[in-house]
Amino acid sequence: MKILIIGGAGMVGRKLAERLAKDGQLGGKTINALSLYDVVSAAVPTGAQFPVKIIAGDLPAKGETDKLVADKPDVIFHLAAIVSGEAEQEFDKGYRINLLGTQNLYESVRHTYEKDAKKPRLVFTSSIAVFGAPFPERIGDEFHHTPLTSYGTQKSIGELLLADYTRKGMFDGVGIRLPTICVRPGKPNKAASGFFSNICREPLAGQEAVLPVSDDVMHWHASPRAAVGFLMHAATIDGETVGARRNLSMPGLAVTIGQQIDALRRVGGDKVVNRIRREPDPFIQKIVAGWPRNLETKRAEALGFKAEKTFDEILRVHVEDELGGKIA
Amino acid sequence: MKILIIGGAGMVGRKLAERLAKDGQLGGKTINALSLYDVVSAAVPTGAQFPVKIIAGDLPAKGETDKLVADKPDVIFHLAAIVSGEAEQEFDKGYRINLLGTQNLYESVRHTYEKDAKKPRLVFTSSIAVFGAPFPERIGDEFHHTPLTSYGTQKSIGELLLADYTRKGMFDGVGIRLPTICVRPGKPNKAASGFFSNICREPLAGQEAVLPVSDDVMHWHASPRAAVGFLMHAATIDGETVGARRNLSMPGLAVTIGQQIDALRRVGGDKVVNRIRREPDPFIQKIVAGWPRNLETKRAEALGFKAEKTFDEILRVHVEDELGGKIA
Repeated sequence: MKILIIGGAGMVGRKLAERLAKDGQLGGKTINALSLYDVVSAAVPTGAQFPVKIIAGDLPAKGETDKLVADKPDVIFHLAAIVSGEAEQEFDKGYRINLLGTQNLYESVRHTYEKDAKKPRLVFTSSIAVFGAPFPERIGDEFHHTPLTSYGTQKSIGELLLADYTRKGMFDGVGIRLPTICVRPGKPNKAASGFFSNICREPLAGQEAVLPVSDDVMHWHASPRAAVGFLMHAATIDGETVGARRNLSMPGLAVTIGQQIDALRRVGGDKVVNRIRREPDPFIQKIVAGWPRNLETKRAEALGFKAEKTFDEILRVHVEDELGGKIA
Repeated sequence: MKILIIGGAGMVGRKLAERLAKDGQLGGKTINALSLYDVVSAAVPTGAQFPVKIIAGDLPAKGETDKLVADKPDVIFHLAAIVSGEAEQEFDKGYRINLLGTQNLYESVRHTYEKDAKKPRLVFTSSIAVFGAPFPERIGDEFHHTPLTSYGTQKSIGELLLADYTRKGMFDGVGIRLPTICVRPGKPNKAASGFFSNICREPLAGQEAVLPVSDDVMHWHASPRAAVGFLMHAATIDGETVGARRNLSMPGLAVTIGQQIDALRRVGGDKVVNRIRREPDPFIQKIVAGWPRNLETKRAEALGFKAEKTFDEILRVHVEDELGGKIA
């Protein structure tokens, strides 16, 4: 089978490519070719036993998505996006990449496979940013799009179009709304949500981290490993069982900052926890107050999507996958 | 004030133009100019005391929406759309008019008024087609987009973009989801929902009408007069009171076919009711089964939107407005 990852240089895209290289198969089918597309060149994953094509380009540019799908991949992962903060500041850039890029991709897939009986599976990564306050304390499967950001609006539209193209038999789409990915590896980033990872990652690596909100702030998390699992499951799941509502909130774990810190103490001890410096930031507190805290993801769970059940587990995944088992 | 109606040749657009001509004002402000835009030339409304400009064109054509808003109307009504059945059969045509046309309009408004402190009110007519089954028996304000048609998808996207552009201060949008308009004047049309009006309009005018569904089918109605009232209220309502969720399900009346017929008997007698011929149509029955039956429109009601409370009232509006008070 041929696989295309759009957004293959991003954190989740890279981890997905590495996992596919390691497994050599997806849903029991041998992988014969993998293409990694992004705005910058992605890295070739270690140990791939199949050819890996690296392509860099501008997704919404004219003709770009036609070229991308010309060799008819069996599975297309669409992970590319301008992130939330940037899409909010750069209105036109956000709509160009996140909406026009997605529309172009859908149209190219529609026309490229037009005469084929078998349509490709297209996995679209959406976000819990499609939900904006006010919402229920636990956001269930019957609460739908209420975005309060341009990013959330763009993801909502991507979901709606995915469902309509799929209903029309133009391709076989599944959209998955990812929780906040925690612990996010790499350097601290500027996302307002960055501190959820920072207060774990930096202390576990011997560094200090700043906590800008209070201990009772609750949020919805899954590990990078779980995110890769979601993507692979979404790529192989029977479309009939998904039904007409093609977009699913992924399972995750709702924990407060206090519970994150308790888990961190259990996993790394007081010396790790003591590296967290409390520095309340009213600006970030206000942003976070409008974010989903907790979801009820019965549909996705019934369909076999799985996330971590405890924050200890999320931390151990990070220690295993990123720190070679060692805590500083 | 200057007013632009996009879709000014349609049934609701015409009635709105006639009402504005009759009133000479909107929300207490004198109307100085009215433009009616559509794919065909609209009629000049009777008795207008202000200049009326008639423009025919292709909404999504390049530069079209820029020209349309160049003279900076204070209120823009966007009613133009490819209807549900046609949008379902003609995928590209539906997306071109209903999505691209709407996107172009929003962009033109954004850029035309970019340096103006006062942004125009843009009233977008959406539809209960944004809701697809399964849904609650009464669809409340906390149930959001789940379209199962291309038309419903396009309207949902129009709503989401309207909310995002408004949130960004690019214009001042209000979206209203119209109930099925009943009694729709004119000839029977081919819409699957046509029979709800046909079984009232034709019998009241001395003609036979076909009823393809059973008496227990429930649906959500408002009169053309109520629809014009919704539009005028949406054009003048204080945006602050609407809040971040700029799209509202309009009030209406949930009645079964049996209740429609009972009302028809009260208003027109047995001779009128006897002109209904029952001819069950499994194809139409199946389509209708997936439609919203009943809504709970607390937000819109609290904001002062008003619809008929009985089907007798809906019938009397038709007899007054369309039949000069006479029943055949």
